[in-house]
Amino acid sequence: MTVVIRSEHDLLGDRDVPVDAYWGVHTLRATENFPITGTPISAYPHLIDALAAVKEAAALANEELGLLEPRKAAAIVEACREIRDGKLHDQFVVDVIQGGAGTSTNMNANEVVANRALELLGHEKGQYSFLHPNEDVNLGQSTNDVYPTAVKIATVFAVRGLLEAMAVLQDAFARKAVEFREVLKMGRTQLQDAVPMTLGQEFSAYAVMIDEDRSRLDEAVELIHEINLGATAIGTGLNAPVGYAESARRHLAAITGLPLVTAANLVEATQDCGAFVQMSGVLKRVAVKLSKSCNDLRLLSSGPRAGLGEINLPPVQAGSSIMPGKVNPVIPEVVNQVAFEVIGNDVAITMAAEAGQLQLNAFEPIILHSLSESITHLRAACLTLAERCVDGITANTEALRRTVENSIGLVTALNPHIGYTAATDIAKEALASGRGVAELVLEKGLLPAERLADLLRPEVLAGSGTAPAV
Amino acid sequence: MTVVIRSEHDLLGDRDVPVDAYWGVHTLRATENFPITGTPISAYPHLIDALAAVKEAAALANEELGLLEPRKAAAIVEACREIRDGKLHDQFVVDVIQGGAGTSTNMNANEVVANRALELLGHEKGQYSFLHPNEDVNLGQSTNDVYPTAVKIATVFAVRGLLEAMAVLQDAFARKAVEFREVLKMGRTQLQDAVPMTLGQEFSAYAVMIDEDRSRLDEAVELIHEINLGATAIGTGLNAPVGYAESARRHLAAITGLPLVTAANLVEATQDCGAFVQMSGVLKRVAVKLSKSCNDLRLLSSGPRAGLGEINLPPVQAGSSIMPGKVNPVIPEVVNQVAFEVIGNDVAITMAAEAGQLQLNAFEPIILHSLSESITHLRAACLTLAERCVDGITANTEALRRTVENSIGLVTALNPHIGYTAATDIAKEALASGRGVAELVLEKGLLPAERLADLLRPEVLAGSGTAPAV
Amino acid sequence: MTVVIRSEHDLLGDRDVPVDAYWGVHTLRATENFPITGTPISAYPHLIDALAAVKEAAALANEELGLLEPRKAAAIVEACREIRDGKLHDQFVVDVIQGGAGTSTNMNANEVVANRALELLGHEKGQYSFLHPNEDVNLGQSTNDVYPTAVKIATVFAVRGLLEAMAVLQDAFARKAVEFREVLKMGRTQLQDAVPMTLGQEFSAYAVMIDEDRSRLDEAVELIHEINLGATAIGTGLNAPVGYAESARRHLAAITGLPLVTAANLVEATQDCGAFVQMSGVLKRVAVKLSKSCNDLRLLSSGPRAGLGEINLPPVQAGSSIMPGKVNPVIPEVVNQVAFEVIGNDVAITMAAEAGQLQLNAFEPIILHSLSESITHLRAACLTLAERCVDGITANTEALRRTVENSIGLVTALNPHIGYTAATDIAKEALASGRGVAELVLEKGLLPAERLADLLRPEVLAGSGTAPAV
Amino acid sequence: MTVVIRSEHDLLGDRDVPVDAYWGVHTLRATENFPITGTPISAYPHLIDALAAVKEAAALANEELGLLEPRKAAAIVEACREIRDGKLHDQFVVDVIQGGAGTSTNMNANEVVANRALELLGHEKGQYSFLHPNEDVNLGQSTNDVYPTAVKIATVFAVRGLLEAMAVLQDAFARKAVEFREVLKMGRTQLQDAVPMTLGQEFSAYAVMIDEDRSRLDEAVELIHEINLGATAIGTGLNAPVGYAESARRHLAAITGLPLVTAANLVEATQDCGAFVQMSGVLKRVAVKLSKSCNDLRLLSSGPRAGLGEINLPPVQAGSSIMPGKVNPVIPEVVNQVAFEVIGNDVAITMAAEAGQLQLNAFEPIILHSLSESITHLRAACLTLAERCVDGITANTEALRRTVENSIGLVTALNPHIGYTAATDIAKEALASGRGVAELVLEKGLLPAERLADLLRPEVLAGSGTAPAV
Repeated sequence: MTVVIRSEHDLLGDRDVPVDAYWGVHTLRATENFPITGTPISAYPHLIDALAAVKEAAALANEELGLLEPRKAAAIVEACREIRDGKLHDQFVVDVIQGGAGTSTNMNANEVVANRALELLGHEKGQYSFLHPNEDVNLGQSTNDVYPTAVKIATVFAVRGLLEAMAVLQDAFARKAVEFREVLKMGRTQLQDAVPMTLGQEFSAYAVMIDEDRSRLDEAVELIHEINLGATAIGTGLNAPVGYAESARRHLAAITGLPLVTAANLVEATQDCGAFVQMSGVLKRVAVKLSKSCNDLRLLSSGPRAGLGEINLPPVQAGSSIMPGKVNPVIPEVVNQVAFEVIGNDVAITMAAEAGQLQLNAFEPIILHSLSESITHLRAACLTLAERCVDGITANTEALRRTVENSIGLVTALNPHIGYTAATDIAKEALASGRGVAELVLEKGLLPAERLADLLRPEVLAGSGTAPAV
Repeated sequence: MTVVIRSEHDLLGDRDVPVDAYWGVHTLRATENFPITGTPISAYPHLIDALAAVKEAAALANEELGLLEPRKAAAIVEACREIRDGKLHDQFVVDVIQGGAGTSTNMNANEVVANRALELLGHEKGQYSFLHPNEDVNLGQSTNDVYPTAVKIATVFAVRGLLEAMAVLQDAFARKAVEFREVLKMGRTQLQDAVPMTLGQEFSAYAVMIDEDRSRLDEAVELIHEINLGATAIGTGLNAPVGYAESARRHLAAITGLPLVTAANLVEATQDCGAFVQMSGVLKRVAVKLSKSCNDLRLLSSGPRAGLGEINLPPVQAGSSIMPGKVNPVIPEVVNQVAFEVIGNDVAITMAAEAGQLQLNAFEPIILHSLSESITHLRAACLTLAERCVDGITANTEALRRTVENSIGLVTALNPHIGYTAATDIAKEALASGRGVAELVLEKGLLPAERLADLLRPEVLAGSGTAPAV
Repeated sequence: MTVVIRSEHDLLGDRDVPVDAYWGVHTLRATENFPITGTPISAYPHLIDALAAVKEAAALANEELGLLEPRKAAAIVEACREIRDGKLHDQFVVDVIQGGAGTSTNMNANEVVANRALELLGHEKGQYSFLHPNEDVNLGQSTNDVYPTAVKIATVFAVRGLLEAMAVLQDAFARKAVEFREVLKMGRTQLQDAVPMTLGQEFSAYAVMIDEDRSRLDEAVELIHEINLGATAIGTGLNAPVGYAESARRHLAAITGLPLVTAANLVEATQDCGAFVQMSGVLKRVAVKLSKSCNDLRLLSSGPRAGLGEINLPPVQAGSSIMPGKVNPVIPEVVNQVAFEVIGNDVAITMAAEAGQLQLNAFEPIILHSLSESITHLRAACLTLAERCVDGITANTEALRRTVENSIGLVTALNPHIGYTAATDIAKEALASGRGVAELVLEKGLLPAERLADLLRPEVLAGSGTAPAV
Repeated sequence: MTVVIRSEHDLLGDRDVPVDAYWGVHTLRATENFPITGTPISAYPHLIDALAAVKEAAALANEELGLLEPRKAAAIVEACREIRDGKLHDQFVVDVIQGGAGTSTNMNANEVVANRALELLGHEKGQYSFLHPNEDVNLGQSTNDVYPTAVKIATVFAVRGLLEAMAVLQDAFARKAVEFREVLKMGRTQLQDAVPMTLGQEFSAYAVMIDEDRSRLDEAVELIHEINLGATAIGTGLNAPVGYAESARRHLAAITGLPLVTAANLVEATQDCGAFVQMSGVLKRVAVKLSKSCNDLRLLSSGPRAGLGEINLPPVQAGSSIMPGKVNPVIPEVVNQVAFEVIGNDVAITMAAEAGQLQLNAFEPIILHSLSESITHLRAACLTLAERCVDGITANTEALRRTVENSIGLVTALNPHIGYTAATDIAKEALASGRGVAELVLEKGLLPAERLADLLRPEVLAGSGTAPAV
């Protein structure tokens, strides 16, 4: 008969855990306590890697300070490296939305690392007298410094992925800005015909928006590099020996390759969620811009016959189960929805941050969840938009040119030459009669024909037409 | 030399107040403590009237129970009626956003009523030994039952104004639904041409939306009629004698003409902001629909030449300081902005409600402010939209008919007769070639000419075309 | 060599799909187009069941109207019943957040049903000439009526689960209200000691809140029973024969057991998301109340020695990785986080609803996703809160009684007997001196000892103490 | 008989305006079209000043480029300076929430400046043939560059006021951090007793939070210095001569003293609201932190006898109309409410930004309104909090010390010396028995008395206790 369980003990008593589980009693209770989303933290691989990195750095610091036997430290380090190599992720089973300020996530990490380290040392899982999840793996740490530090590192890596995707999308828009740089069209304000521009200028604006958003994201991610490792429970560093915070930070920076900085005031840093609120605010900005751009793409491609019909989005699937031949702007539409989600997540993060009390914010798990969702969904949205939509956009050049020639907005260009009042009258008459602006100006003798022709040259109308596409 | 000040006393000591002020020391301190918005509660006349109604009802109940001398009660009642007639509103000077759960608003009311009652009794303002703001005017009450009760009554009356304005807007849309009932046009899904409909059906939908929203608002306002008067401090009714709650409710119902009900559980009712959250949620729904309708109006009237150009909004002002003759959809635009404000206010109200602690929600002043702003701005927006926009909308009937005849969406109507696959091929070819659906179907011999003509009759395409406009 | 793929064709050309897949080319393209969340719609079993119910009802209606051969109808119905029995759910693979207004979800359903029906008819998957996903399974339907109808049915069933969980939580609070009905304590307003009450009254309020929220939820779910099946593309019912809408509704009501109603104005109903906005608004209300109650539970159980220490939450896991013996309020904390998520989701749903244009809202997939998440997480939160927290709460009765006896708030009860001004002076002196209210009143001869004792009897102070716990 | 009206003309016809009004027909129509809030733009003095600065800079640039006669330019400049000196503000009468992307605000400014300039030139108001609101005052401009530029300048000056107020509040907290630097207390996580700290550390955290927020606000305001003056209608610079944008920027920088920069891509800059979304996001961050700090202040001062009672807020008004002697945390409460408002405003701003279409965002008026409200209310909140609350806070030093001595959290400090498991047992026994940690450790012989005393020295427990208060 095979032994399939082992017994573990905690504050509340004894519990059986599966003998081959790397997690232990604390993790077990957490899975029972938080049956909320069904999504385990293993679905956040950046977080698992970051937890392993923190545990590894702490072990190295503890060894350096003589607090942890080299043999134990080596086993912990090895276990953490395996995790960072993608192993054992399936042992991180606690629900991502959990009470306890991330304690269960930290406990899950402590237990997995300890049990794997025990194996590496030749022991069996659960033989904590040889190496203990709390006393050894968590040595000098507290959930309250481990968890936010890991969340920050995970966020940095996730945002890097988003930044790359945004660059891909920016390039796609910029290429179209070049491609369409001589396609004249009517610009619009308040959905009303305004004055001429080029389609290239229009797409250039989308590229520039993303470029600016990338800069803002770069700034926001910079703030995330400030960590509170060494703060322990509330920032006073209780139980963390002199030199520990600095040593752990140094090792963690080396492991992750990130220029991490220890916060100047650890009490403040431990209770503060400002950097997450800031990051979420910037993600919301990214979402707002993306959504606006997608609204425009859907509007400009409306039709094919009763819409604006200025551009064509590449068809990527049949649009309707009932209307044959209909092709819908499904890619911009999915991006809009991601944007709405990100904006909603920002409210959740804001409330979670506001709800922090005294020396800690207990609600960081929902912040992690929402931030992570926003970042990864935005990343997918940017890539999909670039590759399945923007890259294949074509322009209806001739139809666009006709709208310019036929426009009343041309009169604006004559405003400085014939005066606002006369121009208003021309516009009014053109609208009422359906006639063209140019013929009315000539008929009324307001300008000589040659001068008029010169003023209405498209190159003049659209300005340089060469606003940089970034 | 004239005496221009009088001295009043409170927990914190003595203070001078202007001798002709009806408010007293509590109000004075509140104005100093809350210099936040600069908007006094007098800007919320429904609230002032409601406070006076509550004070009047309480005085009558206290008199009835033998707790207040008839002479005092009569003076208080008279003072309250003057206020409800619009007098002394300028004496309600505390800032609308205030700490203290509305205590300063209640104190302001107690002081104004007391001082006016003192005058009516032949005394001077401030001679509180004859009639006291707290001991007489506030007798049997607490801010914690007075303030929410007054806010509810004020909200009921404000919502009535909104409901009337919505009815005006609904009628305006419904009249257009009738006017445009035979105007054929292309319906659109996802901004792509779909299948034919009438412009009357389109406007009918806007009317129906408002009708449904009015029903929801009616339900939400029903909940607001439940009050906690008699609960005193925390709902236990401490200091309120037996029979007081019922008597006060009866008098208040008579004064206001509202079918008020006393909450079954006063402890719950005193801490609960659910009815406000519900009301705000419904206002948000109203805002969402209004905004959607205005988005549509702006889209349908886009042009005049490079837009959809389906309808014309009446010009109400010159649209541009630089583009002569430009007329913009300024009325729908202002309605959109009110909608955004209402949606934002809902978040503020939500957070304020969530922040309540234990036996009271201290944040009802921001709830009052935000609710009141949402209701009155929505009311103004509905009236402006009806009178300055919808009433004057005209249709470009001929252009609309051409889009139907020219549409690829016609093929959908043939789908049941030629099959989805064949229909798809026709649609594709029509799109690629620029040719019409009907000629392609005939050319390919998919249907005989007569059968085709029958299937494409506009009346058939748009369904009954007579969905009720409410 | 085995054939492992089959070829399918759509508007965009030919594509290979795995030969044993029940989904086809439309589903394939959708999975490529929307790699957003990684969560397939199969994660929403209520939705899959509802889609099958709609397809079944449509087939029966089509058969009844003579539009679909009985043999085909029978196969479709059989396939749908298998799905509703939980089979083939893994074939619903499109991402939950998708462009196209749910078209891909509908196409996925059409394909799975068609291919299973083909098998039942003795054909191979993909042999659509015998039974076609669009021409037969989707006959008389459009995504624009199928998808919202299915989402509504799914929502009704999900909300029922939530209502049950709320009832469990309400009962848990109500039991505690009875258990604690004689436990005297200080009530608080604005976190300051106010007047006495019982702990039973406090818990009764939580029970009543939930009871009221259940009523609101019942009302909101009522509205969800109005469907637009038969509207087809935009509500004009194009291609749906006379009698189809009514027949399909009747069958669907029979299949689901729900009192479904067809909307009076199908054009309006097709573009309208009002019922979802309303539902989300009510879910937000539920979240607000739950969060408030959990804030209170955490506050009342703060300590064990430097907090309020009024109640004890049952320990469910060790609270800290560094602080031995610490037990944290992890269950209320996780409920708070769900509440924040729900409030954020409401913003996402609001934005998605507002973004609808003309005859359709293309953003219902994010509405489905967010609503579903809110409902299921709230359900889990209610059950967890009831079973792992509220049920085990105990009161520190003696400590609570001492706070009442020691309180300054007792003076409020004397207010009607000694006057507000004298009472204020007593309170002030008690606070400054640390002495008791009763002894000061006696010392100053404000009341005779017997009268005082009578006024301060706990039963008197806390009112009836028996507000119904529902 | 005196003439009291003058007639003016616009696109829509003739209208009478009061003869002494500086505004004209465009303003008149706007006041009729937008009866929404009742708040005129004159309530935003920073905006009026900024509009005058823009008009002045444009006149100087136009003169410099030879487009405007020096005599006209001088009159315009003089009129603008008068406005910036605070004159004529009452002539800015259009409603702050308006359709038209700010056109009515720009028109109002053009008319007031023109009419005042006409007077300065010896003409009567309305004699626009001598100097025209559009052709002269608005020369080379469009609402679409004037309005956002003015809003940005107004925002910069408003934020400066907020930054000053935040510095005042930071100093108030920092002074308390010094004052309380030796006051030992229990730190808490998740509202449960954790480990010791000083009250000075607690207040230091509040000071540091504000300091960081000020840095974020500085960064966000930096972005606001980028303007699009010279872009005219859509960013193509139509009608603006070469050199105009640079000249106008230079003059505007000189007039305002701000380091203004012209955007690199004016098409993008004209449609972009990113800088406002960013600013609002940072204001939300400020609000979150302020609200959290106020939540803490209310919690720490709860009592006086049944609460935490750690600190005393200075009484600033009587707290209750019924409970004598009650003093409530009214100042933190009002700050909380401002925070909720700011968070709600952020949602309104987000939606307005997202709703921009094509070359313009028509919804900047609500952005201006909401941003301005957030900034000015936050400023008032910070000053009120500093001066009427934080400055007067006192500590209950003795009571705080007792909670430390009596705490179970002390055991955490022994964790590294006796092990997590033993420490857990001690904690558990202390809790169950009500006994002290120290005595149990000694009783069980886990540590010698001297070593124990050393480990429990307060200075050791609270760390350096001297984290910089900024």
